[in-house]
Amino acid sequence: MNAKQPVIKRIGLFAKVADPETGAVMARIVELLRAANCDILAAKNAASLLPGSTSRPAAEIAASVDLAIVVGGDGSLLAAARALKWAPVPLVGINRGRIGFLADVRSEALHEELEPILRGDYTLERRSMLRVQVGTDTTAQFALNDVVIKGSDGSRMIEIETRVDGARFSRTRGDGLIVSTPTGSTAYALSSGGPIIAPGLDAFAIVPVSPHSLGERPVVIPAGRVISLHPLIEDDARAEATLDGQISIELTPRDTVRVSRAEPELLLVHPPGYEYFATLREKLGWGGRAPEC
Amino acid sequence: MNAKQPVIKRIGLFAKVADPETGAVMARIVELLRAANCDILAAKNAASLLPGSTSRPAAEIAASVDLAIVVGGDGSLLAAARALKWAPVPLVGINRGRIGFLADVRSEALHEELEPILRGDYTLERRSMLRVQVGTDTTAQFALNDVVIKGSDGSRMIEIETRVDGARFSRTRGDGLIVSTPTGSTAYALSSGGPIIAPGLDAFAIVPVSPHSLGERPVVIPAGRVISLHPLIEDDARAEATLDGQISIELTPRDTVRVSRAEPELLLVHPPGYEYFATLREKLGWGGRAPEC
Amino acid sequence: MNAKQPVIKRIGLFAKVADPETGAVMARIVELLRAANCDILAAKNAASLLPGSTSRPAAEIAASVDLAIVVGGDGSLLAAARALKWAPVPLVGINRGRIGFLADVRSEALHEELEPILRGDYTLERRSMLRVQVGTDTTAQFALNDVVIKGSDGSRMIEIETRVDGARFSRTRGDGLIVSTPTGSTAYALSSGGPIIAPGLDAFAIVPVSPHSLGERPVVIPAGRVISLHPLIEDDARAEATLDGQISIELTPRDTVRVSRAEPELLLVHPPGYEYFATLREKLGWGGRAPEC
Amino acid sequence: MNAKQPVIKRIGLFAKVADPETGAVMARIVELLRAANCDILAAKNAASLLPGSTSRPAAEIAASVDLAIVVGGDGSLLAAARALKWAPVPLVGINRGRIGFLADVRSEALHEELEPILRGDYTLERRSMLRVQVGTDTTAQFALNDVVIKGSDGSRMIEIETRVDGARFSRTRGDGLIVSTPTGSTAYALSSGGPIIAPGLDAFAIVPVSPHSLGERPVVIPAGRVISLHPLIEDDARAEATLDGQISIELTPRDTVRVSRAEPELLLVHPPGYEYFATLREKLGWGGRAPEC
Repeated sequence: MNAKQPVIKRIGLFAKVADPETGAVMARIVELLRAANCDILAAKNAASLLPGSTSRPAAEIAASVDLAIVVGGDGSLLAAARALKWAPVPLVGINRGRIGFLADVRSEALHEELEPILRGDYTLERRSMLRVQVGTDTTAQFALNDVVIKGSDGSRMIEIETRVDGARFSRTRGDGLIVSTPTGSTAYALSSGGPIIAPGLDAFAIVPVSPHSLGERPVVIPAGRVISLHPLIEDDARAEATLDGQISIELTPRDTVRVSRAEPELLLVHPPGYEYFATLREKLGWGGRAPEC
Repeated sequence: MNAKQPVIKRIGLFAKVADPETGAVMARIVELLRAANCDILAAKNAASLLPGSTSRPAAEIAASVDLAIVVGGDGSLLAAARALKWAPVPLVGINRGRIGFLADVRSEALHEELEPILRGDYTLERRSMLRVQVGTDTTAQFALNDVVIKGSDGSRMIEIETRVDGARFSRTRGDGLIVSTPTGSTAYALSSGGPIIAPGLDAFAIVPVSPHSLGERPVVIPAGRVISLHPLIEDDARAEATLDGQISIELTPRDTVRVSRAEPELLLVHPPGYEYFATLREKLGWGGRAPEC
Repeated sequence: MNAKQPVIKRIGLFAKVADPETGAVMARIVELLRAANCDILAAKNAASLLPGSTSRPAAEIAASVDLAIVVGGDGSLLAAARALKWAPVPLVGINRGRIGFLADVRSEALHEELEPILRGDYTLERRSMLRVQVGTDTTAQFALNDVVIKGSDGSRMIEIETRVDGARFSRTRGDGLIVSTPTGSTAYALSSGGPIIAPGLDAFAIVPVSPHSLGERPVVIPAGRVISLHPLIEDDARAEATLDGQISIELTPRDTVRVSRAEPELLLVHPPGYEYFATLREKLGWGGRAPEC
Repeated sequence: MNAKQPVIKRIGLFAKVADPETGAVMARIVELLRAANCDILAAKNAASLLPGSTSRPAAEIAASVDLAIVVGGDGSLLAAARALKWAPVPLVGINRGRIGFLADVRSEALHEELEPILRGDYTLERRSMLRVQVGTDTTAQFALNDVVIKGSDGSRMIEIETRVDGARFSRTRGDGLIVSTPTGSTAYALSSGGPIIAPGLDAFAIVPVSPHSLGERPVVIPAGRVISLHPLIEDDARAEATLDGQISIELTPRDTVRVSRAEPELLLVHPPGYEYFATLREKLGWGGRAPEC
């Protein structure tokens, strides 16, 4: 996986927000890319930070680049992947301050961590995604982290009936229910008591949020299954399916949300020497509470 | 506490909903009350279940009865207390099926459990409540279980700054924050990982809901403190304070929610022989997962 | 999986304890087996409950039967599998009272649930097991549920260094560490906050027990990995590896415990109509805390 | 509480271990104490680090000093309090590296944090303790953090019957049971899922360790109650009561452990400006997982 990968020549650039510090990081990245003779296609936010550059549509970037570089954290990387319509473009995230679970090149270490990537010295990781289909809608949406079902009125308990491959699984009452990928297992699902799932495991977790029954617990199932979630709400009530915390879809009492493994996988680029568990240790403070002396 | 209490002559009657089974229970209760020479004042829902009876305003009931009987579960008892504007009227709940934490007279055992109460053979328990004041509003609201702060858009993380007696306590990011009484400790707070607090303890719990940081944990503090909760939201965003899951108050970024111990306490009537821990054992299935044989 | 399976003619019989009630169940089973023209080989405990029968060694039973019937709960089924030295003999458990996760034929329903099995109408399920090797010992032990590492002095915190395929995974301080199969995920690991893992998923969970650091969380990894557990204890201290709560192995500071997927899988026989999630719902009281009315 | 306290003239000195770094800290403390004209009585470990000094018995120190200074972490402070037989001597802990929950003067800040204390500028805090009595033994032991009941064979489940003021409370099966003070609520009880209890609250927590039943949850009760813990073990089995992780008492099946509030309280000295919640925030990494950018 860490063997030499194809050399990278054509780069898409994404940025989180137009604040001055992001601009400074962006300028250093552009300098480094030009020194490596890369072509640069800047998406809207990124272009606004690069004096004299022109913004390119995401569709054009998706169709033509070897790598998309995102300046920002995990949320920005997610947003860029969504803007690229989950096209099979390798993505790398440049993070200021602490590294993210996904965006793990440090802006202070561009020379050590980004340059090798351009020369083909990187780890390419495939992350499985969720395919989400609501009611009779035949178009599908995608999520890298999770799908969350909640009541539209956040302060009220909701009841959800869940089936796995058509067989009855559970009937949960509580704040809601999360279906999470391994990638999403360190995001919202973790806050709700779900386990961490190694990205190499082909599995999804079903995690209840503040369940009424103390016997309700997170369940990990093979990713090949179809999970159907049906909100049991009054005729005039509404529920919501939220994808990656970014897209919300309104649900009526007649809607069922079908979640399955997506065909495309997300292609994540990591700097050489990447280890998933090392990121876990750093992000979660494993060994955190210091030894009493 | 279980010594002979004053005999009860004047009764307020509350009911949950106008379904036929509640009507049947109600009829048996009325028969029993008449046999005991009690006067009956029926609130709206209850009157609708009693042919030929007239509905009385809650304020009149609050001012004149010795006891309010609620046919329904914990939620109905809460609603009746709210309708009575938390007047110091002793309340007893008659539950069909499983008993509740608050409503613990079984409709199948009226003779054994309700009759003694009318004769003054009962346990009177005082439950502390929360006084909730929002922003510059000088009127206060009350809650028996909990006050919950969440974002108005339930799918989004919210950040809340909490102070205790003016001193910085925490800054939580997650789904929200619960301030719970001992009574509320077996309700929503329990689903969110909070501890059970014995009703006799003069304490409140601050319980984060799906907190982003794994180090955030429920904290139990003396009830005499003033807890201030300030949602850190964008200028155009809104948050919500929800009381007992029944009343919602919209919060702007300038609003602070001040929570303290309420002056009045709720007066709960239990049948003779009441033990709080016995209810816990029954409701939570302590000793639940059966011994493997 | 639920299609017609080979007809069963030769039966091994195991029992938990020689109490009168088990004897009565045993007598009914024997009657039913004889009516079906089955040969019966009774292991020691079972023979002691069957007047006039002779006990057979477990090795002979392992080598010759089509099915082993265990009268008792999950623990008895585990003990029988261990006595059979994990030979590939299909096992079925007959439980008095509540069904177990593994032993799910009810002694009150032998006619409906055991008879069909003898005719070949059953579900055969393969459960993955752990292969456990300690220090330089070349012989391996097996576990169906879990391997638990703890200090020998149960009241003291222990520190354990864990590696996965040789790479550093974690350094945990606390009561101990569990490596659990999907089968074990509903046993001790569940009590320690681990997730439920569907038996069809080829994965193991690493679950810390009362970890000192709040950031330590259960992790689910692919079953194909080798997990090495090394207790970081003083020179004169001892730790313990416990398999399925039944076998304990003493560990010195120089010992490493290597855990991997076992070659043989356990063959479990379920009555027709078996559904894993239905067992979960019954055993864990999903939908447990009753709806408040 | 933070008002001027009596000036301190006579000091007891305790140390954790005789390592060179502790010696260096100790030398700086002694210099500072001499400059302040304090008399110094060094306990055994401390004397071994002070060339030319004589060791004094703990009993003599307990009877005569105004303040005991402990160089080490929370565990060392606990050990010193135990050596002093819980005499009402104010204690302060000097910690190298991260501060502890109890020992919160930093060795790098002796001038700012220890000197003011000697002048009477400090916060004196009273921490409630547990009185523990086993079986018919009339002598009592004390614990500042917790009493833990476990089976002597750490790998086996134990069943414990708990009563509160004589009334049945629970029957727990699992690894064991913790009774914790507010002080102990950030120690072992926290690792086992217990809540944090503010030190000002007169309450104890009963926290099950890896309970078999998912409905078993931590319970907080008023400190004035008597908690009786009875291990339900076989005639020839043994259990253990462990106090503060330091003292173990063997229990037979006939023994009951009675836990109540201790008469003496521990007197803790904190540097000026001490805030309990600030320590929590630092120790538990509140606000730990960094904001995603």
